[in-house]
Amino acid sequence: MEFPTLIDHMRLHISLTDEEAATVLSKTRTRKFLKNQFVVQNGDVCQFESFVLSGCLKSFYIDDDGQEHVVAFAVENWWTGDLGSFITQSPAELNVQCLENCVLAQIHYSELQELYREVPKLERFFRLIIQNAFVAAQKRIIQNFTLPARDRYLQFREQYSNIEQRVPQYLVASYLGITKEFLSKIRSEMIMK
Amino acid sequence: MEFPTLIDHMRLHISLTDEEAATVLSKTRTRKFLKNQFVVQNGDVCQFESFVLSGCLKSFYIDDDGQEHVVAFAVENWWTGDLGSFITQSPAELNVQCLENCVLAQIHYSELQELYREVPKLERFFRLIIQNAFVAAQKRIIQNFTLPARDRYLQFREQYSNIEQRVPQYLVASYLGITKEFLSKIRSEMIMK
Repeated sequence: MEFPTLIDHMRLHISLTDEEAATVLSKTRTRKFLKNQFVVQNGDVCQFESFVLSGCLKSFYIDDDGQEHVVAFAVENWWTGDLGSFITQSPAELNVQCLENCVLAQIHYSELQELYREVPKLERFFRLIIQNAFVAAQKRIIQNFTLPARDRYLQFREQYSNIEQRVPQYLVASYLGITKEFLSKIRSEMIMK
Repeated sequence: MEFPTLIDHMRLHISLTDEEAATVLSKTRTRKFLKNQFVVQNGDVCQFESFVLSGCLKSFYIDDDGQEHVVAFAVENWWTGDLGSFITQSPAELNVQCLENCVLAQIHYSELQELYREVPKLERFFRLIIQNAFVAAQKRIIQNFTLPARDRYLQFREQYSNIEQRVPQYLVASYLGITKEFLSKIRSEMIMK
């Protein structure tokens, strides 16, 4: 059982008694996914908040021309899902797909509502988690407006320090909103310097 | 006193007893700002979460070339500030400036930490508020990647339905990441159709 990882992660932000931890675990399931399997599919309601115990995932959007745009990556100790779909329980705009075999700790929407009642401290936990996610999203909006691709790539490497080796370059390029040829050019220029 | 507006707004999301409401109000101040006055200045720590009782504000970023990029607008019943600066208590990257005379209900960082202890329901309130803000920010990232400027403008009008008449067009253009000439073109094409 790799569940304790989730509790350790929560205890970085809030104190949980053993009883409270047991309540959280009683409403959490672990599930294994194979590489390429989908955790969330566009059009389905996102039913779970997913915490990554092991593996690497991408969340992405397909535009009207069928082109894929990577919105975020997730690795161990990150949360993933389509939060917009989850909180409104309406069809997801995003897809979440495994880039490696993954093990996720998942909390179902209705179980989470119960958990908020039974362990109100979780309100604080998720407030802190989502606060950080919001700040990161806002930074990315600013960077997309203001930074050249090379600097956005440096920021990406800082934010996702251990991810670059684990994901194909064309997905990094998609995340940065540039072609993979342009990313290759940036990388080779950086190596030459 | 226009304070009750803040409590009404909180009660849309959480139940507050009159005693809890009084505690919130005891740690909240109202402050008037003149048009063009700054609520947050780049480089200063953002000390307050600000709730708009009346008026209209922009938050914006100045890039290395001195160009302004509008990150968000705020009107009545919206929150504003530089959340990244506020939660880490480090210097702000953003500026928040009044586009009209404004009245804000402000909660100081240290008062808010006390409020979280005294009225733990506020954890839930701010979780819900920030969750919505995160989803909106993520939508904007996707739109900037995938939608042509005309569609981004339509989305802006939907999200900020009553703001367009209150702010200069060049700021709307800045928010959309386009020139004001291009925005004029989009608008005149829409009127002609």
